[in-house]
Amino acid sequence: MTELSALGITGVTITPVAFSDPPLLNQVGVHQPFALRAVIELQTDGGLIGLGETYGDAAHLARLHAAGQAIVGTDVFAQHEIRARVALALAGVAGADAHGLTGAISSGGTIDRVYAAFEVACLDAAGRALGRPVSDLLGGAVRDRVPYSAYLFYKWASHPGAEPDEWGEALDPDGIVAQARRMIAEYGFGAIKLKGGFFPPDQEIEAIRALHRQLPDMPLRLDPNGAWTWETSVHVGQELAGALEYLEDPTIGIPGMARVAREVPMPLATNMCVVEFEHLAPAVAEGAVSIILSDHHYWGGLGRSRLLAGICDTFGLGLSMHSNSHLGISLAAMTQLGAATPELTYACDTHWPWKRADEDVIEPGVLTFRDGAVAVPTGPGLGVELDRDALARLHEQYRRCRIRTRDDTAYMVQIDPAYRRVTPRW
Amino acid sequence: MTELSALGITGVTITPVAFSDPPLLNQVGVHQPFALRAVIELQTDGGLIGLGETYGDAAHLARLHAAGQAIVGTDVFAQHEIRARVALALAGVAGADAHGLTGAISSGGTIDRVYAAFEVACLDAAGRALGRPVSDLLGGAVRDRVPYSAYLFYKWASHPGAEPDEWGEALDPDGIVAQARRMIAEYGFGAIKLKGGFFPPDQEIEAIRALHRQLPDMPLRLDPNGAWTWETSVHVGQELAGALEYLEDPTIGIPGMARVAREVPMPLATNMCVVEFEHLAPAVAEGAVSIILSDHHYWGGLGRSRLLAGICDTFGLGLSMHSNSHLGISLAAMTQLGAATPELTYACDTHWPWKRADEDVIEPGVLTFRDGAVAVPTGPGLGVELDRDALARLHEQYRRCRIRTRDDTAYMVQIDPAYRRVTPRW
Repeated sequence: MTELSALGITGVTITPVAFSDPPLLNQVGVHQPFALRAVIELQTDGGLIGLGETYGDAAHLARLHAAGQAIVGTDVFAQHEIRARVALALAGVAGADAHGLTGAISSGGTIDRVYAAFEVACLDAAGRALGRPVSDLLGGAVRDRVPYSAYLFYKWASHPGAEPDEWGEALDPDGIVAQARRMIAEYGFGAIKLKGGFFPPDQEIEAIRALHRQLPDMPLRLDPNGAWTWETSVHVGQELAGALEYLEDPTIGIPGMARVAREVPMPLATNMCVVEFEHLAPAVAEGAVSIILSDHHYWGGLGRSRLLAGICDTFGLGLSMHSNSHLGISLAAMTQLGAATPELTYACDTHWPWKRADEDVIEPGVLTFRDGAVAVPTGPGLGVELDRDALARLHEQYRRCRIRTRDDTAYMVQIDPAYRRVTPRW
Repeated sequence: MTELSALGITGVTITPVAFSDPPLLNQVGVHQPFALRAVIELQTDGGLIGLGETYGDAAHLARLHAAGQAIVGTDVFAQHEIRARVALALAGVAGADAHGLTGAISSGGTIDRVYAAFEVACLDAAGRALGRPVSDLLGGAVRDRVPYSAYLFYKWASHPGAEPDEWGEALDPDGIVAQARRMIAEYGFGAIKLKGGFFPPDQEIEAIRALHRQLPDMPLRLDPNGAWTWETSVHVGQELAGALEYLEDPTIGIPGMARVAREVPMPLATNMCVVEFEHLAPAVAEGAVSIILSDHHYWGGLGRSRLLAGICDTFGLGLSMHSNSHLGISLAAMTQLGAATPELTYACDTHWPWKRADEDVIEPGVLTFRDGAVAVPTGPGLGVELDRDALARLHEQYRRCRIRTRDDTAYMVQIDPAYRRVTPRW
């Protein structure tokens, strides 16, 4: 029982890493050659280490360092206190978010984005101490496999000047269908999401129609990241009647989404107009969305994602899961959460297939896809182990790549000087 | 670590008990001479026992027995599975609730009322295994003392034919003020709730005014349990402008409460029109209430009460806590929950002072009031220990008292044959 009484937090190590990312096209540009993440190692006085993974952008790293200092001395079970300390620490980080009039007040969303990484690390440490998977600390697993969806992107064959990546080009309906077929063949996915918002809407409608023709039983989702006006959104929604499981963020903002929701035949989903708890009341009041894409990285960790799930269930909203480019610690956390979330009504998003198999920070073997689902790790904590050599390699890659903030638009402008970020574009 | 891997549930013991209750007057009659509770002992394969306390009415006991059988074989951390098994088990209990058209379907509220008792017992067992208080399993304590409010009742000096109880009569403003002064002197309460709905509204207005005059800094609440029409509610609310912290359940139902809310100057609270998760969406949509009184006994235990707290915080509702007549296991659970609920915005209700000090099922000494607050037990689990001799005594009292279902109205009719239950009465 030594470990259980000795779960005081004695230190936090934050290691930024970079891993290869293909040229995935989207509403604001194109993925840069490397995606950034930060790996959290939380040390406890019993000697156990808890792992977390979060965004690796420079501003976020600064917040992580301030918050990480502030939580030393607390206990891994003291989540309310840890979040309060994170909030206090962020109040001291200049320009901690865009909401603070003076930079001295942070919004709940900013606090949750920073707190989340530490919360997951605490749960990992607690689970290790208990000899139980993190899902047991979230109410217990209700499924032993968590379903994910294929996440299709329009893409170039390669980053400019680089060798073609293993996925090749996808710039038209045929390319998208080929990408879907390969992803299904390799991972067994039972649902498909297409990242849209890059080509004119009618071209993306054609891609969805091609997928629907070729894979008629496959639930399909289209996500243009708010690229469209509400009129365009209604047009696309009506054109795709019967073809989409849900339409994700066709337009920006709760009022616009509410207007679209009233005129399209499929449910609307979001990870843009409802991204923190304070957005829920207006979204519910206006009937803006039917489905929330949760994401523990910005909803305040796994415990607060369980809260979000309970809110969705209580207010008649469906629940799916959002993903950014991520590594294995995040996939393990997403899978533990998905396992312990009875309210999950849709297969979760993941960028996992876009990551090179030889680039990660965890020891391989635990997280594998079969029939589009990942078996829930049953080992203690998140169920994955840090590979320190791999961590060092990806940190060295971070050091060398010089990317410090994700900026798909700047990278696109570098390639195409005429490119402008415009929202809505159509 | 043996206990942590051995937290499988091997058996459940349910012991109904009865304890003395004074003749407390309310909207539907008067408290019977004995209040009923059920004590849950949950056995685990590691030998640890987890404690729970819940209602002791006959119909509830039948549900508890069905559910208790059904959860044997699960693990104390498998809360989602336990709740699902409770739901399944209740589907087999004829007339499990009034909502099931065929008796074969139970509402979420009925499931949560039964599930709650076992959830608390699981958390107690888990906390004991971890050597940590239950508050640590709820995100950690944010306060080391939980504030409660004095809970005043109109009352007779004694049950008919019995010796006067230690509190004496309170049937007018002077009696209520005297009761308040004594309760504050003995417990240090810093907030006062008066159970109303028994006398005509103007008489209860006078009682509140007397309290407000005599104890001008004391937050006051009035709870007539829906005794009034919406017109009467508005009249009382307007008369008591400036005197009440909140007005609780003046009238029945969400639409009526919403109508009153628009016309009275103080916030409305409820433990009647919002008592299960499915009531939250309509209450929020109609703006029916400003404050929810949570109660883990019917909101599905401590974890789901945390969910309720998060929902209140998200939708701008205040949070207080409701109480029925209860024993020490419940007070320990309420206090652990209150400690781990940052969202708690009001002192909690408790009937504790109405219980004889020599009647309980726990070993005395842990739960004591100072300055109106109970120190959060820091021992493992709930922090209280079962006194088996005391349990046997209160069970014997249950056996002899012959009360099997709380029925304040029937008891009142026995005393006053002309009495009729009428809602709204004024």
